Amino acid sequence: MRILSGIQPSGTLHLGNYFGMMRPAIELQDQGEALYFIADYHALTTVRNAADLSKNIRDVAIDFLACGLDPQKACFFRQSHVPAVTELSWILSVLTPMGLLERCHSYKDKLAKGFIPSHGLFAYPVLMAADILIYDSDLVPVGKDQKQHIEVARDLVIKFNEAYGDTLKLPEPSIREEAAVVPGVNGEKMSKSYGNTIGMFEEEKPLRKKIMGLKTDTTPIEAPKPTENSNILALYKLVASGADYDQMVAEFQSGGVGYGTFKQRLFEAIWTYFAPMRERRAEILADPGYVDRVLKEGAEKANALATPVMQRVRKAVGLT
Amino acid sequence: MRILSGIQPSGTLHLGNYFGMMRPAIELQDQGEALYFIADYHALTTVRNAADLSKNIRDVAIDFLACGLDPQKACFFRQSHVPAVTELSWILSVLTPMGLLERCHSYKDKLAKGFIPSHGLFAYPVLMAADILIYDSDLVPVGKDQKQHIEVARDLVIKFNEAYGDTLKLPEPSIREEAAVVPGVNGEKMSKSYGNTIGMFEEEKPLRKKIMGLKTDTTPIEAPKPTENSNILALYKLVASGADYDQMVAEFQSGGVGYGTFKQRLFEAIWTYFAPMRERRAEILADPGYVDRVLKEGAEKANALATPVMQRVRKAVGLT
Repeated sequence: MRILSGIQPSGTLHLGNYFGMMRPAIELQDQGEALYFIADYHALTTVRNAADLSKNIRDVAIDFLACGLDPQKACFFRQSHVPAVTELSWILSVLTPMGLLERCHSYKDKLAKGFIPSHGLFAYPVLMAADILIYDSDLVPVGKDQKQHIEVARDLVIKFNEAYGDTLKLPEPSIREEAAVVPGVNGEKMSKSYGNTIGMFEEEKPLRKKIMGLKTDTTPIEAPKPTENSNILALYKLVASGADYDQMVAEFQSGGVGYGTFKQRLFEAIWTYFAPMRERRAEILADPGYVDRVLKEGAEKANALATPVMQRVRKAVGLT
Repeated sequence: MRILSGIQPSGTLHLGNYFGMMRPAIELQDQGEALYFIADYHALTTVRNAADLSKNIRDVAIDFLACGLDPQKACFFRQSHVPAVTELSWILSVLTPMGLLERCHSYKDKLAKGFIPSHGLFAYPVLMAADILIYDSDLVPVGKDQKQHIEVARDLVIKFNEAYGDTLKLPEPSIREEAAVVPGVNGEKMSKSYGNTIGMFEEEKPLRKKIMGLKTDTTPIEAPKPTENSNILALYKLVASGADYDQMVAEFQSGGVGYGTFKQRLFEAIWTYFAPMRERRAEILADPGYVDRVLKEGAEKANALATPVMQRVRKAVGLT
């Protein structure tokens, strides 16, 4: 079973990225032939500075490797190192009804958020379909927001195979059920665009400061504290053992312990949880050529998978 | 000066193609570094059968070579043999405002003619811009109907260079002034879609039959004949010497010669005009590997021009 996941190169990663996407993705590397690509062609739709893009790509690669992506198990590469995806994207375009793209929520959502309506944003579902189809992917785990794009890819497979004969493999979506809810420092969903993130690899001092500054209510020390919608508990649940979490819930309910103490304990738990990844990250940073080597080898493997599919496609449409 | 022209692989060519586009294009091969590509990616928007597409590509290549395209002077290749154009097309897409494409007449015209609105048709001006820009083209001779697409390419150069620094070369359009008017057998403009074409390389017998069947009025033999809007004269002008043409005009005006005689003379002139090309065509057909060799060498030259431009572009946007 071939599993494909794309990763946005949006710079240094935060806890929301880790628990929402990276951890589940990394778990999959033991369940099949996993392909992870850094979606750098896609990133061009939002990043307009070469140095920023290069840095973001590098940062996300380092963080993903530090978090446990194992290049011996999974193929890890950059989207733009397999430029044939843009060729497949063009070929799919001729079969893509405009209405199919016009109905995509994510484009409309982006316009609603004030993005300039560019052809890149509009055409993105076709490129994403090419990303999936060029590797004969079986399974594409995505968040709910990407479900419609998988449907576009499936539609295009059906259209292509009807027009040209059985050529492309129909991928199965795998919609991640409500992934871990990760609140940011202000209690809202953690997101770079809300400016409320906690970085996975922040230095000890600023991290402690951030955790101690988590927004809480004004319940006095001796009183029981509400466990519902507590950002401290929500974050602690992600990084503490079950027993430690239950203990904190009990202390919330009994009263007598202040938020400062809980925050201190949360900081320790986060610091401990990411300690092995921090160590791995330091090792990676100590070997400046490592990331490039991994991505180069990944690109070779990915191209070796993509080439026969493109040959099939070119033959099917008459571009031989 | 680098001159770029794209050729639609729409099958065997007719006199309208030859005098409208091929002859002027071939004349240009002596005026600069000419690049001629067969637009097979583009053809996918209308041809949905692999065998048809392959045949059309081959036929147009044979005919173009037979008509005098000299692969020693000009670089002749297939669009899809330089797949990096699709990569550049994606990179340009992120800078292409949707409004720019929505305003393109040719897309709207195609919908008005009943084409299904596909993303390929919509996105075509971006691919055409990539075709032009990937070779640092200086001059792009086009018909009036393509003028707007050159403007799109120029707009994208300006946007790209503003966003990423001076990277792409600004091409100059060269709008072909009203090319030769070539009437079809029914007097309407010669066009494959009107079913009124006269093929350049038709066999003698069917060609003669077609010419003898040209639509004419019922002026009797002895009476003077109208020279205006005469399809016989319009076609004869293209293939006869100036003296022969003047003579026929005089005989139209004096009367006493019937349309049958004029048609017979027109047939002879067409047959003679294309005789050297017919011979060249027979030579090409006798060497089954020739066309592939020419297109392969052309692709090598074209890729050698495209590669450094793509490297510049990738560096400029941060995809290094």
